[in-house]
Amino acid sequence: MNNTLGQNVSITLFGESHGEAIGAVLDGIPSGIKIDRDFIAKKLSLRRPFGDISTKRQEKDDFKIISGLNGDITAGTPICIIIENEDVNPDDYENDIKPRPSHADYTAYKKHGVEGVLSGGGHFSGRLTAPIVAAGAIAMQILEKKGIKIGSHIKSILDVEDRDFADFYSDISVLQDKNFAVLDNEAAKEMQKTIEKAALENDSVGGIIETAIIGVDAGLGEPFFDTLEGALAKGLFAIPAVKGVEFGAGFSITKMFGSVANDQMEIKDGKIRTLTNNSGGINGGISNGEPIVMRIAVKPTPSVKKEQKTVDLQSKTQTTLIVLGRHDPSIVHRARVVADSIAALTILDMLSRNEGSKGLRI
Amino acid sequence: MNNTLGQNVSITLFGESHGEAIGAVLDGIPSGIKIDRDFIAKKLSLRRPFGDISTKRQEKDDFKIISGLNGDITAGTPICIIIENEDVNPDDYENDIKPRPSHADYTAYKKHGVEGVLSGGGHFSGRLTAPIVAAGAIAMQILEKKGIKIGSHIKSILDVEDRDFADFYSDISVLQDKNFAVLDNEAAKEMQKTIEKAALENDSVGGIIETAIIGVDAGLGEPFFDTLEGALAKGLFAIPAVKGVEFGAGFSITKMFGSVANDQMEIKDGKIRTLTNNSGGINGGISNGEPIVMRIAVKPTPSVKKEQKTVDLQSKTQTTLIVLGRHDPSIVHRARVVADSIAALTILDMLSRNEGSKGLRI
Amino acid sequence: MNNTLGQNVSITLFGESHGEAIGAVLDGIPSGIKIDRDFIAKKLSLRRPFGDISTKRQEKDDFKIISGLNGDITAGTPICIIIENEDVNPDDYENDIKPRPSHADYTAYKKHGVEGVLSGGGHFSGRLTAPIVAAGAIAMQILEKKGIKIGSHIKSILDVEDRDFADFYSDISVLQDKNFAVLDNEAAKEMQKTIEKAALENDSVGGIIETAIIGVDAGLGEPFFDTLEGALAKGLFAIPAVKGVEFGAGFSITKMFGSVANDQMEIKDGKIRTLTNNSGGINGGISNGEPIVMRIAVKPTPSVKKEQKTVDLQSKTQTTLIVLGRHDPSIVHRARVVADSIAALTILDMLSRNEGSKGLRI
Amino acid sequence: MNNTLGQNVSITLFGESHGEAIGAVLDGIPSGIKIDRDFIAKKLSLRRPFGDISTKRQEKDDFKIISGLNGDITAGTPICIIIENEDVNPDDYENDIKPRPSHADYTAYKKHGVEGVLSGGGHFSGRLTAPIVAAGAIAMQILEKKGIKIGSHIKSILDVEDRDFADFYSDISVLQDKNFAVLDNEAAKEMQKTIEKAALENDSVGGIIETAIIGVDAGLGEPFFDTLEGALAKGLFAIPAVKGVEFGAGFSITKMFGSVANDQMEIKDGKIRTLTNNSGGINGGISNGEPIVMRIAVKPTPSVKKEQKTVDLQSKTQTTLIVLGRHDPSIVHRARVVADSIAALTILDMLSRNEGSKGLRI
Repeated sequence: MNNTLGQNVSITLFGESHGEAIGAVLDGIPSGIKIDRDFIAKKLSLRRPFGDISTKRQEKDDFKIISGLNGDITAGTPICIIIENEDVNPDDYENDIKPRPSHADYTAYKKHGVEGVLSGGGHFSGRLTAPIVAAGAIAMQILEKKGIKIGSHIKSILDVEDRDFADFYSDISVLQDKNFAVLDNEAAKEMQKTIEKAALENDSVGGIIETAIIGVDAGLGEPFFDTLEGALAKGLFAIPAVKGVEFGAGFSITKMFGSVANDQMEIKDGKIRTLTNNSGGINGGISNGEPIVMRIAVKPTPSVKKEQKTVDLQSKTQTTLIVLGRHDPSIVHRARVVADSIAALTILDMLSRNEGSKGLRI
Repeated sequence: MNNTLGQNVSITLFGESHGEAIGAVLDGIPSGIKIDRDFIAKKLSLRRPFGDISTKRQEKDDFKIISGLNGDITAGTPICIIIENEDVNPDDYENDIKPRPSHADYTAYKKHGVEGVLSGGGHFSGRLTAPIVAAGAIAMQILEKKGIKIGSHIKSILDVEDRDFADFYSDISVLQDKNFAVLDNEAAKEMQKTIEKAALENDSVGGIIETAIIGVDAGLGEPFFDTLEGALAKGLFAIPAVKGVEFGAGFSITKMFGSVANDQMEIKDGKIRTLTNNSGGINGGISNGEPIVMRIAVKPTPSVKKEQKTVDLQSKTQTTLIVLGRHDPSIVHRARVVADSIAALTILDMLSRNEGSKGLRI
Repeated sequence: MNNTLGQNVSITLFGESHGEAIGAVLDGIPSGIKIDRDFIAKKLSLRRPFGDISTKRQEKDDFKIISGLNGDITAGTPICIIIENEDVNPDDYENDIKPRPSHADYTAYKKHGVEGVLSGGGHFSGRLTAPIVAAGAIAMQILEKKGIKIGSHIKSILDVEDRDFADFYSDISVLQDKNFAVLDNEAAKEMQKTIEKAALENDSVGGIIETAIIGVDAGLGEPFFDTLEGALAKGLFAIPAVKGVEFGAGFSITKMFGSVANDQMEIKDGKIRTLTNNSGGINGGISNGEPIVMRIAVKPTPSVKKEQKTVDLQSKTQTTLIVLGRHDPSIVHRARVVADSIAALTILDMLSRNEGSKGLRI
Repeated sequence: MNNTLGQNVSITLFGESHGEAIGAVLDGIPSGIKIDRDFIAKKLSLRRPFGDISTKRQEKDDFKIISGLNGDITAGTPICIIIENEDVNPDDYENDIKPRPSHADYTAYKKHGVEGVLSGGGHFSGRLTAPIVAAGAIAMQILEKKGIKIGSHIKSILDVEDRDFADFYSDISVLQDKNFAVLDNEAAKEMQKTIEKAALENDSVGGIIETAIIGVDAGLGEPFFDTLEGALAKGLFAIPAVKGVEFGAGFSITKMFGSVANDQMEIKDGKIRTLTNNSGGINGGISNGEPIVMRIAVKPTPSVKKEQKTVDLQSKTQTTLIVLGRHDPSIVHRARVVADSIAALTILDMLSRNEGSKGLRI
């Protein structure tokens, strides 16, 4: 089941970026839950190209839910979300025989052959994350009722850094409405400048997205193999361009002594809490009640308008390529709502495993 | 299926560190393959406590294969591996009511209650990785016949760094026989000193393990969701103490411009190759034929003989704890063969999905 | 994953009979395979209401494939099939509060509540089998190239019986083009009369469908649990109205002595064959090279225009109900192509597990 | 995952009948549940050879639980059950080259080759059902606390029939302690005579097992594909010798008119009930609150001491065979506790999907 993620709550993805439509089937959502379509639309809008720092390709991302709802109420049956591809411009993509470096062109060709390489990246396109966002927005609405909130900020673009999360609750609130999700406004401006500068130089940049999930009680996650970290990571690595996933202190924890890395425990306001959160809210693969904090590394968009060495797959000779077409000089700000969505879908699945489909209703 | 990993080739894990035995069921291995038990024993020996820098708990890790083999030949049926726990010393572990900071004690308690907390960490113990290594050693033997080799080195302990992989083939060969898998011998000595020093100070250290998988043809991996990265990461995050997973340039790719990060392509010795390997051998979730390179962040062992703040779960009051017992001041050198094993099991599963169980026989 | 069937080749189903559209996502089909849309249309036409013996509800079942194809060639990505609901007439269905006996109305209500009961049976409707047929028709085209053919006949309607399969190859050929798939033409007429008579009496009838799968080599099936019989049965029981599944001699084998029931073996035309086929082509959960023969029991349509006792779910009082609307006096002849489709999808999945996705290409 | 059954609650099976040990890993059982080992032993005793009508091979079926329990209390971790093979007598089995008709010998050979054919049937042996019974006995103990009871009787041996279930509650109670589970004592004697007579004639007989599950609330089952019938059938077809599965009226429902087959509804003692139970407690793949009733067809044991035609796999010539060794002239009475166990495991899995692992605790 290559295109299905999750056990009790699952998403099945389909579509190609330059085909007729893309979509997802969200299964395992119990009946009787009111869904706010505007909330879904708003989340989709956060994924769309933004300002001067995104592709000029315009997608309205109008979604249709063609099953699983009775009016606005879930029916307990699979919810199929369809997003039609409107602004298809296949002329831009004539590089099928010359794979774009660090794109999926070559690997798709090796896996699926010439017929498998739909122009423009097809099924491997970042465009496929739109239905993930729509499905994630449904998951989020259920989680909200459970007191669980999810929010991401751009932790860095190239060498420009945002401040850390401070008060998770208010920070997440603020991030919900931002198109460019950075906590520090000065950093936001610097990051946008960095992206614009890269665009002017026909280049691209990447960055780090940091996601926080708050309100998750201790006890979520199913080790040995279905750890909370492993389940989240599997979903996050499906986001195109992600090359690393870390939780809590992540890789930097390897620079600490154990006595420093350990999150010592205390009683605070009558609750068991940790003094630090180097564990990122997860111990032994199970949530510990602290905010779950994770970061993903998003590589610079591989489509750059600079001459690059590549090969001609037909003649098997070396050649060069300048990737034309409408591309993002950075996708980090667009990917953060995808990270939120993967988090929401994964947490909801784990919650269903603990509490059953019945438990998701309340 | 919380304790089962993999689709066509799967491993199901069971056991507690201080119970009667631990083990694994390896399913999906075709018949007719000769298994070298000495190879399994050797891999297990690499996971065992080593020299002065490991726990004094001695485990021989004698394994028994109680099903799935006809003599030394696989029968095509599930292979059950059993490792008995010999040196159980439960007196050391009386901390059930006082959770050890950054251990799974508290989360296991919240998930499973008092009854679920088997003394000594139980099912969440690093000891559970022994059957993973035994199963991985079987997978490796099949992969070897397919020309696929896997090897890991300790990239860093605290701030001591090993050199990078140079020639993958010879580096992996050298690493196979090392108990302390470091490429640079001077770095190895420094790392061991660092660990010993931490031990003397009743503290612990972590580090980074870098794994290379060579000989994998382009075309392995099943996006959108069963990407090679996601499948590997899910397994790697099951290794206790892992807090981060990255591929290729990983998090550092976010500091590069796209034109630098991209792995440009060329024809070399008649083969399509990339000039760099920032992608870590994977594009779009599918192997590209280059070495697959990944790193995991292993946190310092949370068991330190220093006083730490914790809580008494019964009285719900603050207290302190000094973790006694026999513990490793670092588990990085022991974990690297576990990383190899997870890699082997995952690659074999993906290979089976491409080529079928029949395809694994040759 | 409630609505997903299959491991390597999988189908995910969505939609309600009176919603906007129904459909399926077919995953695991390798690239490079030419798909004949007319063949799909033809298979769908066999499922449609037929002559005087079916519902007057007319559905053209025009299908769209919105992903996974590059022209007519599979791309290796999930194939999403959409069938729009054209002739929705919800006024006919006002029985939500009075469950129709032996329908899913009451169980859907108990599982999903009032909101979950979409009028007309919703997701539990036989209409949902249309996308299964479309997906099955794609699977059949791949199986055909592997020399595997599937065909079903109506073994009985009420007490009218068709003759047994004689020459499987020619019988299956003949059945392909029949709207009313009966081998003996006289029996066909009798069966149709039986259905028409039941319709005139405002009643309904059921029957038995017998399916043969020929050309499957010995070795397909993955016991202990993923037996060929178990995998087929799981899919077949998803067809609404199926209450029994049997293979080979089925229940009647319990009336035989072992010495009679056993399929003795011989060499025939240089091949190992059995003298009889009481095993239905499967031993120990694995195909034995003989034709796979199975039968399903299809109950009479529960919608009858006779007064029946039921309950009012709101007032919790007894009441009666006459099911109005357009209903089939029998669905047996329509269900047989669904049985073929489930068989095709299951066999293709098992083939992929043996030979890999690569193995399906040839 | 060929040897794993179930989603939230799963069983993974391993072992060969003439290897060192057989066993199962039961996963998804929550912590804190007291397990009665005597109950498991008692259920295993019901599966053992019985009186004169069974194989002379004696197996004590002493089981060990080597993980997942803290004393007698479940720990929430996988429960591994081991049953050692004591009375292995491989000399009896020298038929590897001459496949026994209607056994798995030939199909195992075609799937796994010579190496895959462990003498005596190996992994395909009925012996493998012992760990299923042990795991099922654990599931039953949890279900009992939920008010769910399961019992099977031998509905028929050859042409001797037992009476139907009358009062489910008392009938199931009576059946629990019977080694030869027949409701009518006269029928029981006749059946035993039939088996003894077949044994004297070096032949074997089969029969039908009818299972009832009572106390299941309406709402269990996950259509479209994970129907209660499909999930049960998949497990039941894994029992060696099962060739048919039916629910409620089963195949005989095809001989009824819809108006007769339909289970009309009424209010009885304040509860919604059906007047008949032709649906076998399941509509639309979901339990309706009535007793779940199902039947399986168990074929006559294929091992008969009569000369039968077979082939020599090495020389590819025709030959004959008399199956020697210790075999059961009928396994129906031994298989009924296996049917109970599959039912228990399946119902528990479905319950967990509805109520979560937390819901299983109470």
